[in-house]
Amino acid sequence: MEVVLSIDIGGTSTKLARVDQDYNVLNTTAIDTTRYMDEESYFSALYTAVRTLAGSMKDGEEIVGIGIGAPGGIPIDGTILGAANLPFSERVEVVRLFENEFEWPCFLTKDSYAAALGEGVAGAAVGMSNFVLITLGTGLGCGIVVNGQVVHGHTGQAGEIGHTISVENGRECNCGRRGCLETYVSASGICRTAFELMAARKQCSLLRSVPFNQLTAKMVFDAALQQDELAQEVFLRTGHTLGDKLAELVTIVEPEAIILAGGLTNAGAFLTEPAAERMEEQLLKSLRGKTQIMLSNLKVNEAALIGAAAFAWQNLKNVSVCQS
Amino acid sequence: MEVVLSIDIGGTSTKLARVDQDYNVLNTTAIDTTRYMDEESYFSALYTAVRTLAGSMKDGEEIVGIGIGAPGGIPIDGTILGAANLPFSERVEVVRLFENEFEWPCFLTKDSYAAALGEGVAGAAVGMSNFVLITLGTGLGCGIVVNGQVVHGHTGQAGEIGHTISVENGRECNCGRRGCLETYVSASGICRTAFELMAARKQCSLLRSVPFNQLTAKMVFDAALQQDELAQEVFLRTGHTLGDKLAELVTIVEPEAIILAGGLTNAGAFLTEPAAERMEEQLLKSLRGKTQIMLSNLKVNEAALIGAAAFAWQNLKNVSVCQS
Repeated sequence: MEVVLSIDIGGTSTKLARVDQDYNVLNTTAIDTTRYMDEESYFSALYTAVRTLAGSMKDGEEIVGIGIGAPGGIPIDGTILGAANLPFSERVEVVRLFENEFEWPCFLTKDSYAAALGEGVAGAAVGMSNFVLITLGTGLGCGIVVNGQVVHGHTGQAGEIGHTISVENGRECNCGRRGCLETYVSASGICRTAFELMAARKQCSLLRSVPFNQLTAKMVFDAALQQDELAQEVFLRTGHTLGDKLAELVTIVEPEAIILAGGLTNAGAFLTEPAAERMEEQLLKSLRGKTQIMLSNLKVNEAALIGAAAFAWQNLKNVSVCQS
Repeated sequence: MEVVLSIDIGGTSTKLARVDQDYNVLNTTAIDTTRYMDEESYFSALYTAVRTLAGSMKDGEEIVGIGIGAPGGIPIDGTILGAANLPFSERVEVVRLFENEFEWPCFLTKDSYAAALGEGVAGAAVGMSNFVLITLGTGLGCGIVVNGQVVHGHTGQAGEIGHTISVENGRECNCGRRGCLETYVSASGICRTAFELMAARKQCSLLRSVPFNQLTAKMVFDAALQQDELAQEVFLRTGHTLGDKLAELVTIVEPEAIILAGGLTNAGAFLTEPAAERMEEQLLKSLRGKTQIMLSNLKVNEAALIGAAAFAWQNLKNVSVCQS
C-alpha cells in the first residue's frame, strides 16, 4: 500500500505521520520545535524523526513521497520564508534539502493551504469545490479553494486575509502595519478587545482581576459561559468584525462554505452566531443565504497533516483533490 | 474554418460578431437594446440579428456554437438575472431559449467574466494564469482568473468587488446598501466626489458652473487636464479609494496583474498612479512589487465579444483558455 510521509511544521511542535491514499492517518509522532535554536539542529532532528517514522512501516507499505505544510511555506518554489516563531528567520529551500537527504519526491505548501486541503479531502468540505478555511488560533490563517484547487496566487502568497485591514489606523500588528483583521479576530485579538472594553466601560467583570499578560482567550470564553456580560460582548464584537470581513470575502469568491477551525472555535455559537448574522446583513441581496458558516470536524492535530499529504498526492498523481 | 457567434448584451446596445479560434473578430453588428420594451420583442430582434450574421458567413466557415456575455449572466445555469437596464427584470433562461431557437450549443457568462477571458486570450493578460480585470464604466465590474479559470463562485456570482464596502455608512448605492466601492470608483462616483469636494472646499473650479445632472466624468477629466486642482483632487481621491481595495484583493488572491478597462481608464495616470501608489503602501511587505496595474489593450467593443467567444470555445473543447 502506498503511503505519504506527512509533516506539519508549527512554532510549538512539528508533527509527522504516515497517511494513506484514503487519508487515514496511520501513526503520528512529533518533535518539539522550540527545542532547536537554529536551522541546522532543527532539520537534523526532523530528518531523524522522518527516518524513525519510515522505519516503523508495516509490511506492504511503500513510501512514495513527502508532503510538508509550514507557516510561510511557498508551494511554488518549495521554500519557507522564515517566520518569527520558527528556528530560522531566513528563506530556507526545504524541498531541495529534503530531496538531497531522502530518495522520495517532496512537496511543500503553506500550513493554511494544507489545512484547507485537509478539510476538502476528509473534513467539513468533502464534496465541495469552492470553499474557504479560516483557522482562528494565535493568529488567523486562511486557505481559499476555487474550482477544486487551492488559490496559491502569483508567487504563492494568496489568502492572507488576516492581514487585510479591518480598522483604519487600528491596532498594531506583528506585520508592522495597523488594523489587520488578525489583531481583532484571533486569540490575542480577543484579549485585546477584553481590555479595550474594560477600559471603556464601568461594568463588573470576572476579567478585571487578571493582568494583561496572563489573560487568555479561554479565560474570556469561560467568563462568557458564566454569564459575564463584558466577556460575552467581547465575543459579539469579535464575531461582528469577522462577519464584516467574511461578507467581503463572499462577495469576491462566493464560496459554498466558510469552514472555521482552530482553538477559538471552541467558543462555538458565541463567535459563529454574530459572525453569520453580520455576514448575511452585509451581503448583496442576491448573495444572501448562499454561503454556510461551518465548524471544522477534523481533529486539530490532523487537518494540516492530512492536507500536507493531500498536497503530495495531488502532485504525485497530477490531479485536483477537491471536487464535487 | 470553425467560428463561434459571439453576443455581448449591454444596457445600451447588444453587439454580435463571428469569432474564430484565434480570437479574430470577423465582423460585428449590433442592435439597440433600449429600443425594446420587453423580453419577447428584444429576443425576437436578437434572433433576427443572429440569423443575419449567420447568413453572412464566408465559404468554408462553420458555426459551432454561440457564446453570450451579459450583465447578471449566471454561467452555472445559463440564465440572466434581469438587470435594471435590460428589457427584462425577471430571471430569463437564455441558454434554453437559444437552444430552442437554434441548432448550435449555447454558453452564457457574466459580461465581466467574459471581459476577463477576453483579456486572457487576446489582451493585456495573455500568458497569465492569475489576474483580475476591473472595468470602470458607469459601474464597476470585475472578473477574477485563478489557475487559468474565471472564478464563478458557488452560484455564479463571484467577483462583485464593486459591491464590497469602501466607506461605512457611505454613499447610497443602486443595490440598496451604502458605501459600496462602485459609488466612489466609477463614472458616477467621480461626479459625486466632485460635488462633495465643491461643497467642502472654497477653491475655484471649472466644475462649479455645471449642474449635478449634467456633470460627466469626462468633464472632470478635461478640467483636470486644464490644471483644475479640484478636478485633479477628485482623481487622486478616486485612485486612493481604488488602491485601498486593490490591496485587499491582492492580499486575498495575489494576481500577477490587475488590468483596468472601461471609459474611466481614459484618465490614465490621473487614476492609475494614485491607485498603484496607495495599493503598494497598503500591502504586506512580502506582497509589495509583485502585482502590476495595467491598462487593457483591447478595443472597448471587442473585449467582451472575444471573451464570450472564448467562453464558448472553452466549453466546446473542454479546456481552460488562460494559461501561462
